[in-house]
Amino acid sequence: MKRVAVDMDGVLADVYEQFFRLDEIKTGTRKTLESVTGVLELEAFQFGRDHVLSDDFFRTAPVMQDSQKILEQLNQQYDVFIVSSATEFPKSLSEKQAWLGEHFPFITWKQMVFCGSKVIVQADIMIDDHFKNLDHFNGQTILFSQPHNQLADAGKHTRVNNWKEIESLLL
Amino acid sequence: MKRVAVDMDGVLADVYEQFFRLDEIKTGTRKTLESVTGVLELEAFQFGRDHVLSDDFFRTAPVMQDSQKILEQLNQQYDVFIVSSATEFPKSLSEKQAWLGEHFPFITWKQMVFCGSKVIVQADIMIDDHFKNLDHFNGQTILFSQPHNQLADAGKHTRVNNWKEIESLLL
Repeated sequence: MKRVAVDMDGVLADVYEQFFRLDEIKTGTRKTLESVTGVLELEAFQFGRDHVLSDDFFRTAPVMQDSQKILEQLNQQYDVFIVSSATEFPKSLSEKQAWLGEHFPFITWKQMVFCGSKVIVQADIMIDDHFKNLDHFNGQTILFSQPHNQLADAGKHTRVNNWKEIESLLL
Repeated sequence: MKRVAVDMDGVLADVYEQFFRLDEIKTGTRKTLESVTGVLELEAFQFGRDHVLSDDFFRTAPVMQDSQKILEQLNQQYDVFIVSSATEFPKSLSEKQAWLGEHFPFITWKQMVFCGSKVIVQADIMIDDHFKNLDHFNGQTILFSQPHNQLADAGKHTRVNNWKEIESLLL
């Protein structure tokens, strides 16, 4: 059974929607998608770091469309691990585990990895929205489209725009 | 630079001393080392699971002798990752990160991995006290002696009895 490493933020968790929402509360205006495209999240949103450090940022993030149903199917056919960069924001650790428990209850504690750098991850397939995680990975690499990577050439990685495209690719 | 995956419980953190201490508070008698040798921790200590689930079990664990100085030296010559099984006990995640920050401040958030199963870990060397983590690992495997593994044949793994022996082996 092939092992798939699936990222959380920007793949399972719609962190952009969380940034848009909190930014609008703070500034009174909702940013346009265009204004944040091609820029890393914490640069695109002026108060982004404050939001990430605030209570419940990760705990209340919306779930990416179709991810629940399709990840549950992947979980039947692959050895799925959820691999999330989390240790930069220590409060996020328990929030992320609780969030997974609520929205992806079929993922057991044995399938969770909360780390800093992902260079240590060994799997056959990696699904991630950041080049820094995919570029050094030896297996098949799937770039999940998010505004920050939207303008870049996917290079050797396979770009998918949503979970339906992951379904077509892997199921 | 070779990558070393270093376990926490039973390698950096002296969880046995924590079990002995809490067991004595609960029962009024300190168990002997002999009585817990050759048995997994949660079987050796009747209230072990309660202790592990209690607040501060991991946060207040004593540090293994000589581990601070020698891990700091390893950290100069190797690409060190601290890899800890933690997601079975969700409260342990933030406690373990805070504990590392206090006792091993030279370990950055990028070098921490909190997981369930360690099959996903890719490194050259693994230091661990559990056969279940070492047996499937492809690189060099170092078995750190702890009462639960003391009576077993180390097999293909190199047994070390303390951090001084790790120093001799790797530095």
